[in-house]
Amino acid sequence: MLRWLTAGESHGPALVAMLEGVPAGVSVTSAEIGHELARRRLGYGRGARMAFEQDVVEIIGGIRHGLTLGSPVAIRVGNSEWPKWETVMAADPVDPELLAAQARNAPLTRPRPGHADLAGMQKYGHTDARPILERASARETAARVAVGTVAKALVKQAIGIDIVSHVIELGSVAAKPGLLPRPEDAERIDADPLRCLDPEASERMVAEVDAAKKDADTLGGIVEVLAYGVPPGLGSHVQWDRKLDARLAAALCSIQAIKGVEIGDAFTQARSRGSQAHDEIIPTASGVRRVTDRAGGLEGGITTGEPLRVRAAMKPISSLNRALSTVDVVTGEVATAINQRSDVCAVPAAAIVAEAMVALVLAEAVLEKFGGDSVAEIRRNLDGYLDNLVIR
Amino acid sequence: MLRWLTAGESHGPALVAMLEGVPAGVSVTSAEIGHELARRRLGYGRGARMAFEQDVVEIIGGIRHGLTLGSPVAIRVGNSEWPKWETVMAADPVDPELLAAQARNAPLTRPRPGHADLAGMQKYGHTDARPILERASARETAARVAVGTVAKALVKQAIGIDIVSHVIELGSVAAKPGLLPRPEDAERIDADPLRCLDPEASERMVAEVDAAKKDADTLGGIVEVLAYGVPPGLGSHVQWDRKLDARLAAALCSIQAIKGVEIGDAFTQARSRGSQAHDEIIPTASGVRRVTDRAGGLEGGITTGEPLRVRAAMKPISSLNRALSTVDVVTGEVATAINQRSDVCAVPAAAIVAEAMVALVLAEAVLEKFGGDSVAEIRRNLDGYLDNLVIR
Amino acid sequence: MLRWLTAGESHGPALVAMLEGVPAGVSVTSAEIGHELARRRLGYGRGARMAFEQDVVEIIGGIRHGLTLGSPVAIRVGNSEWPKWETVMAADPVDPELLAAQARNAPLTRPRPGHADLAGMQKYGHTDARPILERASARETAARVAVGTVAKALVKQAIGIDIVSHVIELGSVAAKPGLLPRPEDAERIDADPLRCLDPEASERMVAEVDAAKKDADTLGGIVEVLAYGVPPGLGSHVQWDRKLDARLAAALCSIQAIKGVEIGDAFTQARSRGSQAHDEIIPTASGVRRVTDRAGGLEGGITTGEPLRVRAAMKPISSLNRALSTVDVVTGEVATAINQRSDVCAVPAAAIVAEAMVALVLAEAVLEKFGGDSVAEIRRNLDGYLDNLVIR
Amino acid sequence: MLRWLTAGESHGPALVAMLEGVPAGVSVTSAEIGHELARRRLGYGRGARMAFEQDVVEIIGGIRHGLTLGSPVAIRVGNSEWPKWETVMAADPVDPELLAAQARNAPLTRPRPGHADLAGMQKYGHTDARPILERASARETAARVAVGTVAKALVKQAIGIDIVSHVIELGSVAAKPGLLPRPEDAERIDADPLRCLDPEASERMVAEVDAAKKDADTLGGIVEVLAYGVPPGLGSHVQWDRKLDARLAAALCSIQAIKGVEIGDAFTQARSRGSQAHDEIIPTASGVRRVTDRAGGLEGGITTGEPLRVRAAMKPISSLNRALSTVDVVTGEVATAINQRSDVCAVPAAAIVAEAMVALVLAEAVLEKFGGDSVAEIRRNLDGYLDNLVIR
Repeated sequence: MLRWLTAGESHGPALVAMLEGVPAGVSVTSAEIGHELARRRLGYGRGARMAFEQDVVEIIGGIRHGLTLGSPVAIRVGNSEWPKWETVMAADPVDPELLAAQARNAPLTRPRPGHADLAGMQKYGHTDARPILERASARETAARVAVGTVAKALVKQAIGIDIVSHVIELGSVAAKPGLLPRPEDAERIDADPLRCLDPEASERMVAEVDAAKKDADTLGGIVEVLAYGVPPGLGSHVQWDRKLDARLAAALCSIQAIKGVEIGDAFTQARSRGSQAHDEIIPTASGVRRVTDRAGGLEGGITTGEPLRVRAAMKPISSLNRALSTVDVVTGEVATAINQRSDVCAVPAAAIVAEAMVALVLAEAVLEKFGGDSVAEIRRNLDGYLDNLVIR
Repeated sequence: MLRWLTAGESHGPALVAMLEGVPAGVSVTSAEIGHELARRRLGYGRGARMAFEQDVVEIIGGIRHGLTLGSPVAIRVGNSEWPKWETVMAADPVDPELLAAQARNAPLTRPRPGHADLAGMQKYGHTDARPILERASARETAARVAVGTVAKALVKQAIGIDIVSHVIELGSVAAKPGLLPRPEDAERIDADPLRCLDPEASERMVAEVDAAKKDADTLGGIVEVLAYGVPPGLGSHVQWDRKLDARLAAALCSIQAIKGVEIGDAFTQARSRGSQAHDEIIPTASGVRRVTDRAGGLEGGITTGEPLRVRAAMKPISSLNRALSTVDVVTGEVATAINQRSDVCAVPAAAIVAEAMVALVLAEAVLEKFGGDSVAEIRRNLDGYLDNLVIR
Repeated sequence: MLRWLTAGESHGPALVAMLEGVPAGVSVTSAEIGHELARRRLGYGRGARMAFEQDVVEIIGGIRHGLTLGSPVAIRVGNSEWPKWETVMAADPVDPELLAAQARNAPLTRPRPGHADLAGMQKYGHTDARPILERASARETAARVAVGTVAKALVKQAIGIDIVSHVIELGSVAAKPGLLPRPEDAERIDADPLRCLDPEASERMVAEVDAAKKDADTLGGIVEVLAYGVPPGLGSHVQWDRKLDARLAAALCSIQAIKGVEIGDAFTQARSRGSQAHDEIIPTASGVRRVTDRAGGLEGGITTGEPLRVRAAMKPISSLNRALSTVDVVTGEVATAINQRSDVCAVPAAAIVAEAMVALVLAEAVLEKFGGDSVAEIRRNLDGYLDNLVIR
Repeated sequence: MLRWLTAGESHGPALVAMLEGVPAGVSVTSAEIGHELARRRLGYGRGARMAFEQDVVEIIGGIRHGLTLGSPVAIRVGNSEWPKWETVMAADPVDPELLAAQARNAPLTRPRPGHADLAGMQKYGHTDARPILERASARETAARVAVGTVAKALVKQAIGIDIVSHVIELGSVAAKPGLLPRPEDAERIDADPLRCLDPEASERMVAEVDAAKKDADTLGGIVEVLAYGVPPGLGSHVQWDRKLDARLAAALCSIQAIKGVEIGDAFTQARSRGSQAHDEIIPTASGVRRVTDRAGGLEGGITTGEPLRVRAAMKPISSLNRALSTVDVVTGEVATAINQRSDVCAVPAAAIVAEAMVALVLAEAVLEKFGGDSVAEIRRNLDGYLDNLVIR
């Protein structure tokens, strides 16, 4: 059982993430976590916050001298802008006069379409959007990336799994179909302004971002995550909530602004005939293999040993400079929505977050299949399994 | 906390489903469960099994005189074909000579591409596919529909939620875009051979099925489920696994052959600009509303009060008469896959199963939001919430 | 992850239990389940129902030809008295006239002290105790014993764990302190009228039961469960809900009428000095061992490799022939409590149920530590672990 | 669903606790958390660490201006001794030479009987006890008390529940039986050196501590927690893991050094006859009541409306100055155990931790029963329930 939870508000002192059930002996450092957090700030089309925001990593527990202990890992990602917010977002009561003097503390009463604002206010009983948007903000994904780094290290060191992601669509621009990055492409992808493997499409994506920015508009897109080195047998068909498809779909749809998921080529498969939709099985010198990977490496909710491949559809950013129509919840009048930031597009960042979520789901599935309380024990159990595989 | 699990093999004596955490006072009968199970057997393109398969419903526990007790509900869906299988699928050991005489007992050594067969055999250590395919079979969805009936009754009686589904794409044929069924369309949809709301598309779908059948091929498609009467505030933005988008995505992707999910118009949104992708908020005589419902009634993982709308992409049936290439796992030679049945398409049935899964997820979210151990208590809590809603 | 749930009412058609997460290859038959159910009906002091009650076992799923498949195991324990109850406990609505004619259907309005009756009626909104007592009844433990049989087989076959129980106190009679049964004593214990290892105490217990019966009174007692062959390292100190002490305590306190738990000699330890309360560690030819086992084989929530030993305190049966005072909930008047049965004592049966619960908790802990989807895989992972133990 | 997890090592920079599922509008401050943490450091018989240890509270998330937001609450409890440990317990790799120079970094190879040391080392594959004892240490309970403060505030403000605890046995000294503290006794209890309500017994307990200290020995004891104002209907009889007895037992047995639990007078009940063991029901002007509370306010796993009352047995502290025998795991030779601290007894502190665990379990049960996303909504649902109670 692997559990992960995050806490913290966007403008609070820090986010914190907890990853519980980590085996001992995973090698991971705060520099590696910082590196992944930096990758999350990448991408053409981000606004001002990304330029000055710094993620100050503190490993609170679970790691000693670069190795996990077996204890829960807790990581605090400090907010470098906290001094500006320490009154408005103070945990403890503040002198009302002091608060009244803070422009930033004015209630936000014009909920933004596309955000949790309105429904969250109704649910929790607030007439100010701040208590909702502070937590609903995509800044929370920094905490996921922090623990995702530990999950990546775990699946890499214990199993040999490599995870890579790329942007395949941005607004109306699509990368050349069928381009599948390999782990060795990771640096090249990170170097691309939109984390796109197709340089020609990347150029058009840059233009698309520029055009949207000019129009005070925003963009969404589609990202794809691949995992190489996944053994057959993770997940299970035996119960609805053990299917790895289901768990990956939940993990991806839990990311802010992600509203759709495909395992492999799901929507294309749905429109094809059966004879063209599945991956035939062949004997090869290195064992049974599939000639194609339309299923995204998952059949019946179980990994097949082929690369795992999933996609997530991100809606355009909901905070537009060209503000959308809404209602002022205090006056009941028509209004324009509050605008909290000015990114045009965060699709490249979403791919990094998606990598983290895939890593977490795979780490959980690895622990279920192989048990083990240390990297050495998991690896031994994996080796025993592969050495004794009934069908190779 | 609402929990549901199923058990049982496709050719075993029965399936059984358990739904735990049901409040008292939900009105539901075995006839209503039987009715939903019959809806699941509908649809043009189903094979012989649907014609003779009967679902014999026994309510084992949790319901008395037509009302739930508060106890867990357990429903047994008997397999009317069991007498043919009672030796091959006997739970207890069988005389080996008797078994050897049963052709049906011969090991299935040619795993089918697209099914759990091969990965399942590797995972659980079998060289016969039967132990895998018996459980991975879509017959298991009958058990989900059985408990889904209870969930539907719960959300209808306590909250007033109506759930309706339809087929929007079948193979290469798509229904007219934007056709959204209302609860009152349910009978008309059930009466359509493919549960399609667009009669012209339905005709073309019938032709598509006929053509695929002639070619010994199979088809997939896309279904959409809508829920009306959902109050704002189900699900939450506060943690990744509380987002209702994530939970719906998992529930839908857990259905056999479903590999993709959209909340609202996710993939279209991803390709649109922000100014065209969100649902603006307006004041109306009956409260704040959205002018559109692109988000599928969910923002920030929370229901908005607009109709909930989700889609699921089903791959074509993996058992083809035009059998796919595979490997005989005993000889290691190239072979053609075993073929267990002869449906061309099960998309209309998948929509019924998707209704059940949506009902279960909504029932769970309702209990989280409103608590309550009886229908009366939940309804009282709902009324108190709506009467005191901070924003209307 | 191992999950188990039960459903069914005491006088309904059947109980059903589901055990989800069972690996493949566990050998278990319906006869073995029947044998454990028969052990649960044992014991001096049981009333009439035990004599005529028969537990009709049907394995609905998860087992084929005597071996688990990896699928969830579902077991139906039929109620041989069902024909007498099929109107009163019918799941579907019954003609009101027919019901009115059934004396057994009269509302039970005098809740019994010591039972769930009153609090359950308040919680679920019933003025008849039947909907509560039908589910709260200790008959439900038959379903636990059914799945406990599978758990026992799993931990025995995969790990070599043997579980044995005995009655150490009955009312005011205590067995000689320090008598610890070994697995080979199991048959002898089952043959004792009160499952007591101390023949002299057993005789006095028989007399205690006879005296209580004469006085129309009831008795409780204390049972102890031991597990031999438990490897070090099950459970964990790293999180509150991973401690095996906590999970065993929950499992035991979840049994009807069990209100207290001790791991090892907890209450005696609490009254001793530290120098007398712990188990010193010594090197031996067969590895590090403890000279005593006061801790019950658990330190820091982790098994030590010494025998696991836990105790559960059962209150006297709450349904007395010498009925207790209560209130008629319809009239509001003082009344004597309804009396549903006439056992004097069910302590020996509780020990069998406690064995089942310990087996289920150990099975879960084994799967967490060793993973594995088949008995062979778990055993291989265990062997690798023991062969590589850092401290022997 | 309420979830709580902690992380952090005893000598790491901090502990951190997360409480997820908290409704909005709970009033709580860091001063209140600090106050509870100070109560946890109380008690005669504590060692040096308590004198200098300071708990530096930082609320990282979930609370703004003294009110919970609905977001997860995360609390960091900083370790004021961290500067002394920052090399030995550094999360990131440290120059080996620097480490070698630190006496504190020497591997701890003589595991202490009674602690997680040995079993933990075997489980996680360490030959140094530090990675185990750092997490297994009772210092972790500070994090529980931190989130327990929020749970207490929640159940108090939403439901009106008051929780109070006291020490009823210390070593061989027992308080006068039947003394039950009321909420208004809380301050008086805190003022007693051993948190004992019986002044005469308290004096003897002080003497017992002094005597044990003189002998370089340690003591355990028994604590009792009561909750007043608990409505009937929390928890449920319908499933084994919903019974509140089970959940309380787990919560208490999860506390470091707690090995036994009683709900009400469980062990005394087990030794009594039924006619003397239960709580008869009577009508009173203020509704149905029990004449006694032997059951500890729980019947069938459900709260009855009578005060909840539970006890926990704590073993003596395992780190003795009179060190116990063990094995040096590197040399394999007989050795005396490492000794990490010098408390004689921590029973009064354990009572504070037990309060926190009871509060957390009750908060979870309250949210299940009443749902609600704000204190106002929970209270409204409670009022509606009590106003409509079928039996009063």
